[in-house]
Amino acid sequence: MSSNKSIKNKPAKAIVLLSGGLDSATVLAIASQKFDCHALSFDYAQRSMSELNAAQQLAEAYSASFQLIHIDKGVMAGSALTDENIAVPDYDVDVESIPVTYVPARNTLFLSHALAVAEVMSSQDIFIGVNAVDYSGYPDCRSEFIRAYENMANLATKAGVEGRQLTIHTPLIDKSKSEIIRMGNNLAVDYGLTVSCYQANAEGEACGSCDSCQLRRKGFEEVGVLDPTRYF
Amino acid sequence: MSSNKSIKNKPAKAIVLLSGGLDSATVLAIASQKFDCHALSFDYAQRSMSELNAAQQLAEAYSASFQLIHIDKGVMAGSALTDENIAVPDYDVDVESIPVTYVPARNTLFLSHALAVAEVMSSQDIFIGVNAVDYSGYPDCRSEFIRAYENMANLATKAGVEGRQLTIHTPLIDKSKSEIIRMGNNLAVDYGLTVSCYQANAEGEACGSCDSCQLRRKGFEEVGVLDPTRYF
Repeated sequence: MSSNKSIKNKPAKAIVLLSGGLDSATVLAIASQKFDCHALSFDYAQRSMSELNAAQQLAEAYSASFQLIHIDKGVMAGSALTDENIAVPDYDVDVESIPVTYVPARNTLFLSHALAVAEVMSSQDIFIGVNAVDYSGYPDCRSEFIRAYENMANLATKAGVEGRQLTIHTPLIDKSKSEIIRMGNNLAVDYGLTVSCYQANAEGEACGSCDSCQLRRKGFEEVGVLDPTRYF
Repeated sequence: MSSNKSIKNKPAKAIVLLSGGLDSATVLAIASQKFDCHALSFDYAQRSMSELNAAQQLAEAYSASFQLIHIDKGVMAGSALTDENIAVPDYDVDVESIPVTYVPARNTLFLSHALAVAEVMSSQDIFIGVNAVDYSGYPDCRSEFIRAYENMANLATKAGVEGRQLTIHTPLIDKSKSEIIRMGNNLAVDYGLTVSCYQANAEGEACGSCDSCQLRRKGFEEVGVLDPTRYF
């Protein structure tokens, strides 16, 4: 938890989207080096709610203020992550289509809440842990989506129109999972606090077989350090 | 309530953002001519909640399914429409800046919910009653914002990536208030069901002095028909 915060110069406020997973925990560590962070987490009736406990603990660890936002059940329906009747599939490296764990418009809804909160808090910086290398093929994790969102956001708000331009920071966008873990280790991120599994149980224990578990496991193996994940 | 619905060919589904005001009621009437409409209204702890009753009655009048979505109180704070401590100002034609009734990222949040619901319902059409002529100077009512949103939305979703492109329809974008009222009268819209006032009371009665009341009153006067608005 290194910090460049100056006692004399109050650091600027940044909004950090925090899922409680490995990627967003690393992003919070990066953002905390320069910004006073406000963490946003979302209850969207997702399968794994234990990630929200992880998010709150991570926010506390980085002295970030924490806001849990509710999105109505049903708005992002039809995904294995939001519908108990659709099973989370095991990882399959050969699948090229967008998997059933895709959640409709998820990052758009998350960023849109962050955009409103940023304007209310007079923040011009939003951090999101998307990455386009070791990910699940979701369209809203790509750089072209993020740039289009940023362009839209600066046309949408009073702040944008008046010249207080918003920047969406994606420090992980071109990083592999192992590179992200190395970055986090350099910043002393406690990955034991994080939950990556799509179907973690109430205690935050992981399945070991879903996309997210497999990508995480592979990343730690490549780095050659122990993954503190607990499996059920 | 004219309709081109064919009995043999089921009409496509459209998502219509419905505030309960004059503009969105007219849009619902327009959309209902070609589409099977699903109306979305929002409880964002706004000052005038009676507009939600108006929205529900309008949806029923057009046989549209109705969904009320909740947005957490505080996410869109700091506006005269969401903060009881900030008074709604009287209409002032000379004011060129964005007024205190501006709500942070409101249309972005509304459209982002609509985007998720559209994908879940396999709809490729969203209708929104923004207009850039007789409006209050809000940045998220301009055509350039809508086009940027549509561009972003088609990069964000599985539907967009797979070629089922979304269109955001803005049939009022270049219309004055009086032109909108003429369009609605031609479609037999019952404006007695609508509530435009920023601070309408629980019975849906209007103040007569805010931006929204004044623009509406001026529009009806130009058309030369009676405004059924009830004032408190």
